[in-house]
Amino acid sequence: MKIHGRHYRTIWLAEDGWSVKIIDQTKLPHSFETAQLTTAGQCAHAIKSMQVRGAPLIGATAAYGVCLALRQDASDRSIDEVIAYLENQRPTAINLKWALQQMRNAVKDLPPGERVEAAYQQAKKIADDDVETNRRIGVHGAAIIRQMAADKKDAPLNILTHCNAGWLATVDWGTALSPVYQAHDANIPIHVWVDETRPRNQGSALTAYELSAHGVPCTIITDNAGGHLMQTGQVDLCIVGTDRTARNGDVANKIGTYLKALAAHHNNIPFYVALPHSTIDWSINKGSDIPIEERDSDEVLKISGRTASGSVVSVEIAAPQSQAANFAFDVTPAALVTGLLTERGLCPASVQGLKDLYPERQQ
Amino acid sequence: MKIHGRHYRTIWLAEDGWSVKIIDQTKLPHSFETAQLTTAGQCAHAIKSMQVRGAPLIGATAAYGVCLALRQDASDRSIDEVIAYLENQRPTAINLKWALQQMRNAVKDLPPGERVEAAYQQAKKIADDDVETNRRIGVHGAAIIRQMAADKKDAPLNILTHCNAGWLATVDWGTALSPVYQAHDANIPIHVWVDETRPRNQGSALTAYELSAHGVPCTIITDNAGGHLMQTGQVDLCIVGTDRTARNGDVANKIGTYLKALAAHHNNIPFYVALPHSTIDWSINKGSDIPIEERDSDEVLKISGRTASGSVVSVEIAAPQSQAANFAFDVTPAALVTGLLTERGLCPASVQGLKDLYPERQQ
Repeated sequence: MKIHGRHYRTIWLAEDGWSVKIIDQTKLPHSFETAQLTTAGQCAHAIKSMQVRGAPLIGATAAYGVCLALRQDASDRSIDEVIAYLENQRPTAINLKWALQQMRNAVKDLPPGERVEAAYQQAKKIADDDVETNRRIGVHGAAIIRQMAADKKDAPLNILTHCNAGWLATVDWGTALSPVYQAHDANIPIHVWVDETRPRNQGSALTAYELSAHGVPCTIITDNAGGHLMQTGQVDLCIVGTDRTARNGDVANKIGTYLKALAAHHNNIPFYVALPHSTIDWSINKGSDIPIEERDSDEVLKISGRTASGSVVSVEIAAPQSQAANFAFDVTPAALVTGLLTERGLCPASVQGLKDLYPERQQ
Repeated sequence: MKIHGRHYRTIWLAEDGWSVKIIDQTKLPHSFETAQLTTAGQCAHAIKSMQVRGAPLIGATAAYGVCLALRQDASDRSIDEVIAYLENQRPTAINLKWALQQMRNAVKDLPPGERVEAAYQQAKKIADDDVETNRRIGVHGAAIIRQMAADKKDAPLNILTHCNAGWLATVDWGTALSPVYQAHDANIPIHVWVDETRPRNQGSALTAYELSAHGVPCTIITDNAGGHLMQTGQVDLCIVGTDRTARNGDVANKIGTYLKALAAHHNNIPFYVALPHSTIDWSINKGSDIPIEERDSDEVLKISGRTASGSVVSVEIAAPQSQAANFAFDVTPAALVTGLLTERGLCPASVQGLKDLYPERQQ
């Protein structure tokens, strides 16, 4: 999508043809900066420190991390080491493991001399496929938005989203926001309520940033506000992403998603979860088996922002010596999900629903 | 309760016998400062700017505001003007209107020359009654905690609270936290999950501050985290306060309370709302009739904190020109409330429950 009128993806090959460039998302929304990654270690750091984040983008970054490692050493041992190393950087998003498995399959049976080129081809394929997959999610989702918007007459359709499942979370288009962009581009009147998404504020820092940059009307709200908005008829539709979806349709997503799903259910508001096939973990039967990442308590106790003079500083918001806990994800039970929105279309959040959409993945 | 080993109330008469001192809560948790109020205008500012907040404390501050106005002019017109002025500073907390009605009743039939003394007596009575009322809420609530803790054997009972309904929200003891203090003082092992409570972070700034100052174990969490904690068995009990309770037991409280009540209900966790009689609005039949305050969007877009050098600065956390909405309260339907915890004991959140507890208030 576009920033300052120029089209970007979130990850791309540098002009040298081998090093990797990313948008450093830890710098947003205060400044737009790119970073150059030349080693697998830098890719791991980018994932861990959340310079890149979002399940699909994490997968693509890890794929390029394998390429960079194989440039140094294309041995079997190197393949095993870099994959083991990269897949431990974040525990919840399954796309990371999925992408690394794709990379392993692409290179393992080749002679070492051919592995680097094959790895770059596979990483490019993962990135390109992500773009096309997300575009298709958007086509299916925009059809839902179009239908709902028709009932609103001239008032905009109010869509609530949590965290960032926009193009910044993927290679391009986004998952939850792909339908939003496509509806907006089709001149369907919409407005997005953006949960700020503490502790890291991916909503106010990334979602509001990318929606505004594209011209989509949006309003930031605290994570506390969505229930009130739903109760008072100010939300028509919720769409979120997911970091891992179990076989039964339970979805792990950014902490707080579960609370919004409860409120949507309580107020009869459709609650859709958008995801590419790579987010489905066919090996996990139910959401409670998904590992939930715990992150540093400093993410809760400190926040960074822009001072009046324009510099970006980190400030402590609680009393000194305060204790905090920082769970990064929660699980929304399938019963609260209206439907899963994938590149193949919409399906019920259930074993059968996923089975019907992906028959080739069923035993 | 105690700060730095010294007992404080949140509001008290200065040594001069007429001006009013408060703890300036906008300075917490970064510094403990008191402020001196000498006019009704300063009381109004303290309420509006949230130097004092919490439904009971707002009421007590308004009561002293009437005293200060009558010192200047004890005429009928002055009474009407100061009451109309003060009651418009915050719209949701009913205690404000209740306290001002008490003040009017105490002085209106007296000759002007006797009104100032009567006003100070009434304001003192409102403050003292609040302390005793809250102490009793704590006695009833601590009995519930004691019973639940007995089932936990040696593990601490995990209590989740939202916003600040501690002693800083009242004159002393608090509403939701009065049971917590009394249980802790009785050596019942407890631990409190403190929702940070965006946008103003009364949880991390005030609740964690006052609990820690008293030695109660507590952990700050983002507002997003409570659902996950409840799903995974890490919360035994929720207790919150309320700014206005309707006749049918619906409760308005800080934005986000509704989401926690939904999660507690979904996970079969008791959800109690603690309140003094002055928080019940007998003139309102249901929660959706309670006016919900909307505050400045800057409270969402900016946050203040302590830099590494110790200075307190306000920083912008979203991109420039971002739009935000800031609803301050939401309504939790009575059906999600396990019980209302008052100075007279526990009752169901229902017309009948309140009628049985306060028969004298029923028509």
